[in-house]
Amino acid sequence: MKLYHKIIVDLDDRSYPILIGNKILDGNFNLAKFITGPDCLVVSNETIAPFHMKLLLSNLIDKKVSTIELMDGEAYKNIESTRLILDKLVSSNANRDTTVIALGGGVVGDITGFAAACYMRGVSFIQVPTTLLAQVDSSVGGKTGVNHPEGKNLIGAFHQPKVVLIDTNTLRTLPDREYRAGLAEVIKHAVICDMAYFEWLEENIQLLISKDPEALAHTIRRSCEIKAAVVAEDEYEADRRATLNFGHTFGHAIEHCLGYGEWLHGEAVAVGMIMAAKLSDIETDEVARLENLIRAAGLPVDKPKISFDDWFKAIGMDKKIQQKQLRFVLLERLGKSFVTSSFDKNRLLNILGDDD
Amino acid sequence: MKLYHKIIVDLDDRSYPILIGNKILDGNFNLAKFITGPDCLVVSNETIAPFHMKLLLSNLIDKKVSTIELMDGEAYKNIESTRLILDKLVSSNANRDTTVIALGGGVVGDITGFAAACYMRGVSFIQVPTTLLAQVDSSVGGKTGVNHPEGKNLIGAFHQPKVVLIDTNTLRTLPDREYRAGLAEVIKHAVICDMAYFEWLEENIQLLISKDPEALAHTIRRSCEIKAAVVAEDEYEADRRATLNFGHTFGHAIEHCLGYGEWLHGEAVAVGMIMAAKLSDIETDEVARLENLIRAAGLPVDKPKISFDDWFKAIGMDKKIQQKQLRFVLLERLGKSFVTSSFDKNRLLNILGDDD
Repeated sequence: MKLYHKIIVDLDDRSYPILIGNKILDGNFNLAKFITGPDCLVVSNETIAPFHMKLLLSNLIDKKVSTIELMDGEAYKNIESTRLILDKLVSSNANRDTTVIALGGGVVGDITGFAAACYMRGVSFIQVPTTLLAQVDSSVGGKTGVNHPEGKNLIGAFHQPKVVLIDTNTLRTLPDREYRAGLAEVIKHAVICDMAYFEWLEENIQLLISKDPEALAHTIRRSCEIKAAVVAEDEYEADRRATLNFGHTFGHAIEHCLGYGEWLHGEAVAVGMIMAAKLSDIETDEVARLENLIRAAGLPVDKPKISFDDWFKAIGMDKKIQQKQLRFVLLERLGKSFVTSSFDKNRLLNILGDDD
Repeated sequence: MKLYHKIIVDLDDRSYPILIGNKILDGNFNLAKFITGPDCLVVSNETIAPFHMKLLLSNLIDKKVSTIELMDGEAYKNIESTRLILDKLVSSNANRDTTVIALGGGVVGDITGFAAACYMRGVSFIQVPTTLLAQVDSSVGGKTGVNHPEGKNLIGAFHQPKVVLIDTNTLRTLPDREYRAGLAEVIKHAVICDMAYFEWLEENIQLLISKDPEALAHTIRRSCEIKAAVVAEDEYEADRRATLNFGHTFGHAIEHCLGYGEWLHGEAVAVGMIMAAKLSDIETDEVARLENLIRAAGLPVDKPKISFDDWFKAIGMDKKIQQKQLRFVLLERLGKSFVTSSFDKNRLLNILGDDD
């Protein structure tokens, strides 16, 4: 069975396609047609490049290609890595027609997109995500950036790619733990706006765990559709896009307090979603249903040991503060979310302090 | 006589006013009304802050204000300075509602705008330019950025300010050499698109040299009008905006070869304009007329000693390359310019090599 889906992210003159296929990079695809100039730079990392770089380059015939490999890991998602890419662009005599291609997970995509946004005030950029997290979430939507020592994604830009190319076959080289972390964002998409999708996930989570190609294709397409629709409606995160941050206020705090990389982003978001669900005014059996799905996906459900003070400081630093007021994405029910600065403060204190 | 002009830069939902007045900062102006959130960060440098910071702060009543002073000079227009501003924003708990204000010349404005573009993927930004160069040119149009060791403005973003506030009285503290450098961009505006303005400059250059308030107000307004019109038509420099780079291919090469800061930007552009005029297919007496006006403005007219190889390499590095083809802004006549990759190569070699 040949899997192939095309989704358009509708952003007027910055609209672009997401192409999803199994073994799409195996010689059948002419990526070069999305590259207007004569040259490009492929950015990857030391882990991903040995697996997929050669295959990617086979789709770039007739282009002058430079490559650069970053160190692997969230710890390298910083200004220094951005600088390495910028230096490489300069030393390759890259100009405004140069296209920058990100081959890797969310970290590679975020850093690369930010470097592309900054080089000569913005050059073209293509995403080839190789992790489930990047395929269903971070590669779509144009958010790019790096971490500051004091906070995640504090430095960045909105910079939309020209195309997102998703080869589900790249997931075969992804470690199980990282794969499961990607499922956290999949669950998030269902929880915030699509109850039918949530129920489908409940029924098919074992097929997804085993990377069944059909289940995988369905999930990546549905998650990209949801993400694309939200982004098209609210590119710069005025309101609706903020619902995509469900679980992220708590999740970012976990990553910040434990040190980036200790927990994977998706693992932190998994626990963060349960905390956000508990803060919501919904039935306890709905919280339990979410917790069960997260557990079935092989993700953590219990929050790590973090002192109350550390929680509070980390949440205060979060980007979702407006006018110094804490804002949360909460659930009206499973499948329906909203952004609010009105929440039960005692309940929040209980959730943060409750170390059972 | 009360001088006051208002010009709108028309960019749909990113439109903003340029306000021009003499002693506009002396307590009569409520800058705070352009600041939506409760707090702001004022970025200046060690030279400008002692002159104007206190006055600026008197216009920010009821706002929580942080300040930071950068080192003075083009040598500090780099990623490190951007980082200092970002660190200050983080340590001040700045959020998406924070406004960043640039108080200073073009270097301060460019770095500050870039930091504002990158912090949390873009926060609001106000320009308070205190040099003639910044008032007539760099503060208007949304180009922000810093230099890379290998090239000027290679790293940056388009980020429009919320308002540009020009107090012509700040020019009284500007050294004469820098003031004259600003006149180069004024002359550029006339040369590229307004022959009547060029003739007005020929007649009034002595009044401008003496900083006559009326002549100054007229010039800043007219130059801002020209810049605003060009930017409104072509925000991202597809074509027409590129005419604002008249003289800049050569000018940037001069700055690059001599080391940034040796010649002022306006001085390099002054000589660059004469070189570009010589490369144009216009009468020699038109070139002479431009040269006379530049000389009358107290600006250099002879190019510095740079080896042919250095010229060529520096020009090859310039951003105005498209598809590896050199492009120049040339004159059809005084007051009319165009962008082209078709030029007389022998004439270019003569201009670069001719060390009479």
